[in-house]
Amino acid sequence: MRLKDLAEHLGLSQTTVSRALNGYPEVNEATRLRVAEAANTLGYRPNASAQRLATGRAGAIGLVLRGADELGPHMSEFLSGVGSYMANQEIDMLVSTVANHQEELAAYRRLAASQKVDAVILHSPTIRDERAELLMDLKIPFVLHGRTDIGRPVAWLDIDNTSALERATSHLLDLGHRRIALLNGDKGRTFAEHREMGYRAALSARGIAVDRALIGNSVFTDEVAFRIAQSMLQLRPHPTAFLAGSMMTALGVFRAIRQAGMQLGKDVSMIAHDDVFPYLNADNMYPSMSTTRSSIRQAGTRIAELIMQILAGKPQADVHELWPVELVLRESSGPPPSI
Amino acid sequence: MRLKDLAEHLGLSQTTVSRALNGYPEVNEATRLRVAEAANTLGYRPNASAQRLATGRAGAIGLVLRGADELGPHMSEFLSGVGSYMANQEIDMLVSTVANHQEELAAYRRLAASQKVDAVILHSPTIRDERAELLMDLKIPFVLHGRTDIGRPVAWLDIDNTSALERATSHLLDLGHRRIALLNGDKGRTFAEHREMGYRAALSARGIAVDRALIGNSVFTDEVAFRIAQSMLQLRPHPTAFLAGSMMTALGVFRAIRQAGMQLGKDVSMIAHDDVFPYLNADNMYPSMSTTRSSIRQAGTRIAELIMQILAGKPQADVHELWPVELVLRESSGPPPSI
Repeated sequence: MRLKDLAEHLGLSQTTVSRALNGYPEVNEATRLRVAEAANTLGYRPNASAQRLATGRAGAIGLVLRGADELGPHMSEFLSGVGSYMANQEIDMLVSTVANHQEELAAYRRLAASQKVDAVILHSPTIRDERAELLMDLKIPFVLHGRTDIGRPVAWLDIDNTSALERATSHLLDLGHRRIALLNGDKGRTFAEHREMGYRAALSARGIAVDRALIGNSVFTDEVAFRIAQSMLQLRPHPTAFLAGSMMTALGVFRAIRQAGMQLGKDVSMIAHDDVFPYLNADNMYPSMSTTRSSIRQAGTRIAELIMQILAGKPQADVHELWPVELVLRESSGPPPSI
Repeated sequence: MRLKDLAEHLGLSQTTVSRALNGYPEVNEATRLRVAEAANTLGYRPNASAQRLATGRAGAIGLVLRGADELGPHMSEFLSGVGSYMANQEIDMLVSTVANHQEELAAYRRLAASQKVDAVILHSPTIRDERAELLMDLKIPFVLHGRTDIGRPVAWLDIDNTSALERATSHLLDLGHRRIALLNGDKGRTFAEHREMGYRAALSARGIAVDRALIGNSVFTDEVAFRIAQSMLQLRPHPTAFLAGSMMTALGVFRAIRQAGMQLGKDVSMIAHDDVFPYLNADNMYPSMSTTRSSIRQAGTRIAELIMQILAGKPQADVHELWPVELVLRESSGPPPSI
């Protein structure tokens, strides 16, 4: 059954039927329901692929999550940003969850084969990311959130993690801290490597040796951060300052400091990286939290915009944006206690 | 071009080509890339709708978010649960973001028309939810997370909010509290109405009148909760206990208590509703947080499972699950200070 047949059956124009099926507001509710019911009863399918063939577009952007845990606070904020832009374009997000790296590669192949998406957002890259190579080979347009080096130009948007950590570390050094702990993301992830580079550069500029015991690599959760900070605070001498990789990490470090009977901002300082979660405001913490700050939601929105530009013809190789990170000083960072 | 033609062009069997395009692991990487490239160059499209017509399935579940802000900590935990189940079924999630209620209704109509999804997850219902009525009319299978009363049987899964709040309130009354504040969700939302019912029932059982000044209705963010709790603590007499609607709310209340120079668990008590966020553990808070506890991620997983059962033929009217909520007592709730 074609649109024409359905329209004739209903005694309506094809335009009205098409508008009704696509939810245009100028068609009243009763007509919309009548059209939807008739389409359903008669088995009319103005299907996705017909629309895709007509427009050349699937109308969706793909995102693959490795493990459901990846949909945590950082990813959901990022996707909020993507969603707020895509909503205006009437583009959906197709989210696939997979169990591991091999399955993730298979998922991209499926997306390429099924043509359910027009482009992909690639996230959480490693230094040399195999997924980026595959997407290039599969010729699926994509924008990378973060950076990777695969020897071919990919479209990317990243924040300047190296400079952010260099500034934060230098500031703590200026205040007089010498034992500064870094609670960083997992090794191998580009952002974590960049952050460690910034931290090392600042220490090196003052001739301070890196103490591996003061570097922790883990996922960014309150609980893991608590345990790492707790054990670091038992070192003698213990660190007098922490660089926390996320606000979740900061909550755990804060708890460890309190449990050790110390006061944040007096006995121990902290600067946390703030992705700007609306429900966890650094300014409103008590004491308020010094941060390196960059909105992950804005990054999502901008990446969505860049994807639309690429679909409109902008060369992927021309898309690379490095965003500076603010250093916002509040109560949690002060000079170390005099010994 | 058909699969047969592509296979002949490549000198491979149709089975191998099909497996290569679908990412099966038994096809080696080189073959996969060769097939993908040839398919791309020759314009072969084993498209989504061909697959759908073959299987009768779109292979995706729809979810509509009203405003990108809806993808906050609660929704992302819930979707993690959905995703972890769907991953095993090789089913994707199609997430549409819309700006308002009218657009949300239009989005469901579009989903029905395009047949991009096999079913929908409906969330955050109101007492009488127009969206549930529309989905019934459109004959899109759906499971509701929460409850609504539209006079027709819908499939739903909910937690027992009324009983949870009745028990938490009764416990605080047993401890001797008489001024108990309720920081609840937005009016009109079913869960918020149910929670208020439980709170009122417990007070009423002791002959205690409800004081409207002790009930706050808002979104669950740290910042809003801080402001509401701060102003409630300025009342004379101020509440000696808080029921916080979420862990985010609890963070804000905790901050207001500390800023007022009071001690949680001694001067003021709190019981928070805990959706079990992996990055914000009630047991690990300091002091540890008493909670009414139910994993929103498990609810997501179960709803995904129920959807698959419905798609396999289970009548929607048979699907209704009311989950009990645990009351977990920790350090944040104690007797009120003697006056």
